[in-house]
Amino acid sequence: MTPTDTDGRADVCILKLGGSVITDKNRPETVDTEALERAVSAIARALESASVEQLVVVHGGGSFGHVHASEHGVSTTEGTHDPNAIDAIHAAMGRLNRAVQTQFLERSVPAVPVQPLASAYRDCSGTLHLPTGHLEAMLAEGFVPVLHGDVVTHSGSGATILSGDELVVELARALESDRIGLCSTVPGVLDASGAVVDRIDTLEGIETILGESDATDVTGGMAAKVSALLSLKAQASIFGLEALPAFLAGDAVGTTIE
Amino acid sequence: MTPTDTDGRADVCILKLGGSVITDKNRPETVDTEALERAVSAIARALESASVEQLVVVHGGGSFGHVHASEHGVSTTEGTHDPNAIDAIHAAMGRLNRAVQTQFLERSVPAVPVQPLASAYRDCSGTLHLPTGHLEAMLAEGFVPVLHGDVVTHSGSGATILSGDELVVELARALESDRIGLCSTVPGVLDASGAVVDRIDTLEGIETILGESDATDVTGGMAAKVSALLSLKAQASIFGLEALPAFLAGDAVGTTIE
Repeated sequence: MTPTDTDGRADVCILKLGGSVITDKNRPETVDTEALERAVSAIARALESASVEQLVVVHGGGSFGHVHASEHGVSTTEGTHDPNAIDAIHAAMGRLNRAVQTQFLERSVPAVPVQPLASAYRDCSGTLHLPTGHLEAMLAEGFVPVLHGDVVTHSGSGATILSGDELVVELARALESDRIGLCSTVPGVLDASGAVVDRIDTLEGIETILGESDATDVTGGMAAKVSALLSLKAQASIFGLEALPAFLAGDAVGTTIE
Repeated sequence: MTPTDTDGRADVCILKLGGSVITDKNRPETVDTEALERAVSAIARALESASVEQLVVVHGGGSFGHVHASEHGVSTTEGTHDPNAIDAIHAAMGRLNRAVQTQFLERSVPAVPVQPLASAYRDCSGTLHLPTGHLEAMLAEGFVPVLHGDVVTHSGSGATILSGDELVVELARALESDRIGLCSTVPGVLDASGAVVDRIDTLEGIETILGESDATDVTGGMAAKVSALLSLKAQASIFGLEALPAFLAGDAVGTTIE
């Protein structure tokens, strides 16, 4: 709820809208209009009430990007030099981004679409390079940059996937974000019995909490997500769509990772 | 015709396809399909024959971007904070870029769309910041980045226009390009009598060549264009669509500016 840090710098909040939240995962390239409207409406209200000062939105691929990526065998590590594959994934994400953008403009949110392919790339070692000068300029002008999971150039491998989750972590680091929200289809990190874990502050307990099978999934499962978030200075929360208004109001919701 | 410099670095050619060349300026958001196909086909053949090694394409706005920019009163210096204005200009340019991209893929050119809004911005002094790491990575992977005139964030002014011409000059500098081609609706820089000027190597003669009214137009007319190109190390050519195959083959066509 503190709009400005003691150092005078504006608070930067990074919000990820999960692809499964805003699309119908069972129908190719179908937006879950009701869920998207709920999310956009919560964001519009938070910006109006100034409970969030500077906001970056990242959305996942859901039934848009993933279908094309797996069809062409492209992942975060498996690359492609096929321009048609790159185009299929990128254009599909562009169509989802357009749907999100249209909703934002209808609710008078000053959203600006930002396609990661047009600035990010991985070097030969796989390290992501993500310039953020344009994002800082957008935030300072009062805009809300809306990024998404995308395909990006990968030196030596053609192009690979940059997931929305990886993007959130990199953005949080580069923009020195104070607060991260991952709006998901689950109400938080669930323990073995299915209950929401309130707080995670160390990687040690994770295997016990999530159960070993989940914890050893390093390809993008919950354990990998939590581990990446733990490495950040910012406080991160994983929560469901119903908790988005409370998160944006500054409340602790779902699972807090810090 | 020399594919690699003596320093072992690949030659980078930057080609601008004028908005008036690839669109029908008299009909809103209409692609000049025949002209676009001719241009794309010339580029495809040049890449196949390896007469061009690394290529960056920039296209203008024609009947897509300009209509929306002037409707909303946005120029290279007059900014806007209206997200609907930014979106209208950017989305229109995205539609033209998609048409260009589709043609490239049909001719098996490994084109990758790159939207300037997603990486470039102007600071408070108006200086353009244009990261190019992703473009260098694309070129090294054999891709052809396809950029376009766009609206970009401008610190203190919201967002202003980044013209295709300005983009070409900045890219040439950043990528240490060897050769620049501006494919235009005229066969070159014309003198007062309407004849093509073969070569321009100093700004001194320009007023005499172009006639004073043209020479004093600093808002983006031919004199401003020539002046910006003269400041570069690269050799630049201004020519018509009919000369594009010859330009790509390495010949001197239209007006050479060096």
